[in-house]
Amino acid sequence: MSRRSSAPRVGAEVEGRHAVLAAVAAGRVRELLVERGRLDDGELAAAADRVREGGGEVTIVRDAREFATTTAPQGVMARCRPIAPRSLDELVAVSSPPAVLVLDHLEDARNVGAIVRSAVAAGVRALLVASDRAAPLGPAAFKAAAGTFEHMHVAVESSIAQAVTRLNKLGLWIVALDGDGDRSLFGLDLLAEPVALVIGAEGSGVSRLVKDRSDVVASIPIASDVESLNASTAATLAVFELARQRS
Amino acid sequence: MSRRSSAPRVGAEVEGRHAVLAAVAAGRVRELLVERGRLDDGELAAAADRVREGGGEVTIVRDAREFATTTAPQGVMARCRPIAPRSLDELVAVSSPPAVLVLDHLEDARNVGAIVRSAVAAGVRALLVASDRAAPLGPAAFKAAAGTFEHMHVAVESSIAQAVTRLNKLGLWIVALDGDGDRSLFGLDLLAEPVALVIGAEGSGVSRLVKDRSDVVASIPIASDVESLNASTAATLAVFELARQRS
Repeated sequence: MSRRSSAPRVGAEVEGRHAVLAAVAAGRVRELLVERGRLDDGELAAAADRVREGGGEVTIVRDAREFATTTAPQGVMARCRPIAPRSLDELVAVSSPPAVLVLDHLEDARNVGAIVRSAVAAGVRALLVASDRAAPLGPAAFKAAAGTFEHMHVAVESSIAQAVTRLNKLGLWIVALDGDGDRSLFGLDLLAEPVALVIGAEGSGVSRLVKDRSDVVASIPIASDVESLNASTAATLAVFELARQRS
Repeated sequence: MSRRSSAPRVGAEVEGRHAVLAAVAAGRVRELLVERGRLDDGELAAAADRVREGGGEVTIVRDAREFATTTAPQGVMARCRPIAPRSLDELVAVSSPPAVLVLDHLEDARNVGAIVRSAVAAGVRALLVASDRAAPLGPAAFKAAAGTFEHMHVAVESSIAQAVTRLNKLGLWIVALDGDGDRSLFGLDLLAEPVALVIGAEGSGVSRLVKDRSDVVASIPIASDVESLNASTAATLAVFELARQRS
């Protein structure tokens, strides 16, 4: 399991107030672009001072939207030293017992950000994502995560199936979350053991290859006339159930 | 507690595949606007037949986005007979014991839709929203709810504080969900009793007036370095906890 030769630039650009404040607090910001009026916000003004003190630049812009990727950057964005990706061994070492959240090619960056926010809130701080055919870990994902990405340890691998096999060899149970699952996620005491929790893509769910390599395929019990849950909703319930099983 | 004189038009316009299919299934669609290519989708073609059989119109359009409110209507939208708002007494009668979800002036229609999807999935089918200074129950909310709004009983009241007082008189415990809450929502067995569960607005949370009238202010335990949960995330955890306490 080798890292990609062209390492993805995780969090190299960050937009939105919460996400930018967190990137500044993490000491990653090289250039802060901010609308003048926003510096009336004491926290943003302090962040600008901190960037300057750290040798970074602060650029006053007329309208942050001219530079931004997201539609509502809230008047502030930052160009950052990217977050260094972790190896799978490093992810496993983040908590004891290990808990790794695996996103199997989610495509919606807002979903990815929302999931990270829930996971960090629930105490899960190790994340594995795919390098290709998956939402980039850029401004939209970081904005939806509202600053919590800075607390997440992230591995980026080209094959989720191979990475899951490796996590299994490192002693983790693989639990896939899928509407087809034959066991309820609620009350699943396996979540208290060393575990990798796999969330499937919007629409297509967990890929067959990954499901075949899972020890358990669990589902969230829902009303019969509801087709499915949103991927980030399912992931939120899963990470808080994991926290519950461990508490 | 009287209904507004100008009744809000709940679900009068619906956009997006899941939401439109559900509105057709509910027999509410007066006019279906669909891009020709989308009729290759068997379910949409069958829905178009059903609208025609019910005396409604089917209009083929070149690009649904020219008529749509949401940015991605997925080639289909519908003009509908609005969903009739319910009285508070009707909401209380939806389930036994009663469970009413109260949204205290949420502003983001996507959050409202996501919450409805989670609530219906968890078996909570009674919703109270504010008529003013709150996200409208229009195309964006219905799209995010992915068809589940059709299964929800909805009351729309001008004062949430007065409505909560009335629900309390009708025998419901009022449980407000707020980051400041002094009790954990998890394990709150009061949720198995007749209950109204109040979700606060993005940013400002549950209003003081409503909090003062609540029997319990509960919170979701989260990691100390995370500021808050998204409103729809918190609501999702709450409705599934309610389902758990009742199962």
